[in-house]
Amino acid sequence: MPSISTKGLHMPESPIRKLVPFAEKAYKQKKTVYHLNIGQPDIKSPQIAMDAVAMHSLEILAYTRSEGSEEYRAKIANYYKNKQINVEAKDIIVTTGGSEALLFAMGTLCDSGDEIIIPEPFYANYNGFATASGVNIVPVISKIEDNFALPPIAEFEKLITPKTKAILICNPGNPTGYLYSKEEIKTLCDIVKKHDLFLVADEVYREFTYDGLQHYSILQEEGMEDYGIIIDSVSKRYSMCGARIGCLVSKNPKVISTALKFAQARLSPPTFAQIASEAALSTPQSYFDNVIKEYSERRDTLVKHLQAIPGIKVGVPKGAFYCIVELPVKNSDDFAQWLLESFDLNGETIMVAPAAGFYSSPGVGLNQVRIAYVLKKESLVRAVEILKVALEQYKD
Amino acid sequence: MPSISTKGLHMPESPIRKLVPFAEKAYKQKKTVYHLNIGQPDIKSPQIAMDAVAMHSLEILAYTRSEGSEEYRAKIANYYKNKQINVEAKDIIVTTGGSEALLFAMGTLCDSGDEIIIPEPFYANYNGFATASGVNIVPVISKIEDNFALPPIAEFEKLITPKTKAILICNPGNPTGYLYSKEEIKTLCDIVKKHDLFLVADEVYREFTYDGLQHYSILQEEGMEDYGIIIDSVSKRYSMCGARIGCLVSKNPKVISTALKFAQARLSPPTFAQIASEAALSTPQSYFDNVIKEYSERRDTLVKHLQAIPGIKVGVPKGAFYCIVELPVKNSDDFAQWLLESFDLNGETIMVAPAAGFYSSPGVGLNQVRIAYVLKKESLVRAVEILKVALEQYKD
Repeated sequence: MPSISTKGLHMPESPIRKLVPFAEKAYKQKKTVYHLNIGQPDIKSPQIAMDAVAMHSLEILAYTRSEGSEEYRAKIANYYKNKQINVEAKDIIVTTGGSEALLFAMGTLCDSGDEIIIPEPFYANYNGFATASGVNIVPVISKIEDNFALPPIAEFEKLITPKTKAILICNPGNPTGYLYSKEEIKTLCDIVKKHDLFLVADEVYREFTYDGLQHYSILQEEGMEDYGIIIDSVSKRYSMCGARIGCLVSKNPKVISTALKFAQARLSPPTFAQIASEAALSTPQSYFDNVIKEYSERRDTLVKHLQAIPGIKVGVPKGAFYCIVELPVKNSDDFAQWLLESFDLNGETIMVAPAAGFYSSPGVGLNQVRIAYVLKKESLVRAVEILKVALEQYKD
Repeated sequence: MPSISTKGLHMPESPIRKLVPFAEKAYKQKKTVYHLNIGQPDIKSPQIAMDAVAMHSLEILAYTRSEGSEEYRAKIANYYKNKQINVEAKDIIVTTGGSEALLFAMGTLCDSGDEIIIPEPFYANYNGFATASGVNIVPVISKIEDNFALPPIAEFEKLITPKTKAILICNPGNPTGYLYSKEEIKTLCDIVKKHDLFLVADEVYREFTYDGLQHYSILQEEGMEDYGIIIDSVSKRYSMCGARIGCLVSKNPKVISTALKFAQARLSPPTFAQIASEAALSTPQSYFDNVIKEYSERRDTLVKHLQAIPGIKVGVPKGAFYCIVELPVKNSDDFAQWLLESFDLNGETIMVAPAAGFYSSPGVGLNQVRIAYVLKKESLVRAVEILKVALEQYKD
């Protein structure tokens, strides 16, 4: 039998994939499972976007331009201008989700064996895109004790080698919920300029900031035209994860013309989803006000109840809708499996994402889990109650 | 300024990309341009598919499973069974277009520097996916004189090295319209079994066969469970290029479990497009009968009129909706540009795809173009008249 590639063998599995059979077992046992493990919001997509697709009058579902339709890109540019991010349609390539934008960015910046520095813990699929692209991720560790703030510059600088091509951040962060301050963004911009690197910022959670804090984009910073690349997506912003529409944004024409060649090879992003996404840009501010209020209350509820459990450490998120929680267990993989397989509180249990998959340093984060607050407040309260009782019963 | 990757520099541009500015110039000069250059059919998408999306009742546009929805994959398996291709839902991963299926296949089979043998001329974007994946394409030349039949086995065998991981065919072929016979498929299956390679068959034009000929799939052949991978797409079958839905099919569980890891990294294929594609599977046979009749008549019309032009050689297509035409010119790139920029016949001209981009051997196919018969018969007749007059006037 012919053998598959080494790359294929090394492709990481999703951190929750190995839990899925245990979740299915739990369903069979008629347990109710509170899903704290996924980033699929329960928030309705904007009606205006769903209606735009329902009212389509296409007779031929044709390709669009590889870089996305002109009208849609012009409207995206306008969206950015309203966020003090000064870009034009020509600086934007519409992609099939933020995922594809990341893949294009890695291909555009890196050859096989090149390195990207990423503050750890990070979005687990960065590992997958890096492996697929032959890129080595070099983690710089951020700590729950510091609430996952940017590590000191010196920590970055000692990791930079001739192979380093970029620093990649997620802001606000998945899985930490950390929101970088303006000063931290300036620091990162200074590092990439000094060392002639790219700064790639995954800003898909831009709208989700709490406590009155504002998101500050890398492209709001002066002099980042050559260095800055934004990764974006409609998935979380409009609760349209299934659209698979995102974009790559850069003022560097070489980055755009190169990423466009990757885009041309795959022809075009999905047409129906572009119709929905273009319409979604007209979503009224009241939609976001309600959504942010809801997430903010969920966060407060979740963190308050978690902090009341003895032996737990919680990174307090300032954005996105995740937090990292350190548990009084040795191995959160085992604990997560046990929750599904061997535990219930009156027929109910929870599913969490073990955090080891969000680190590339081996052995780090083993006693941590990521919790997504994409459930209603009452469900979050109940889920934390279940966690509390479970921790009391669990023996490592 | 930081520099982009060597990979990015080497990413090929689409063969018609450099003609686009000249086409835009022609529009500005109010010329009518007959587009023989693209694979975007003018055929309507099935009403049942367009209606399914218009009647959607989604409130949250959520992720589907990474491998595609259960229902859709079960129906795809049923579609294949009706084509005497015996596969189950578990053997299928739904992808974002045939493009993504090719990318997953290359990542699953090949490491950087590995080789795939492809009969040349081939679909130009294979070059792009290969470059993005770090794969080297090794062409085996098929000739217009042989109507692009499979080259002799010896030609393949002398190209096989320890780096060779697969043979990739497109059947029926883009850009040749060649349909491999059952005997040719058997020959290819024998080669891959003997040399322990994979056989990847891009069968997206499966339905488009003429002269009463039947498509024979690599997975209809016995003993191909370990070796065979089908690349498929709804784009041409249902004239739904903008859906961006395809699939990767294999009976080899290692191939599927590995490709699934690539699929998980990008989360899921687009949801609306899966709704359309699932509904499209209920398209009545009469739709295909009409479409095939139409394409068959277009092909006959096109080939008859082309063959009447002195000095032209035409590969007679038995499937898909393309043909390669050898012209009495030195360089078809220059000729194609001249057609748009400097020529018109009563205000009309044509756009063709220079064929050099469909070859990876340098200097081959320079006097050839690809013509797609995706226009109505009257337009094709007129387009060939224009070509005839243009060739009379053109000076190399």
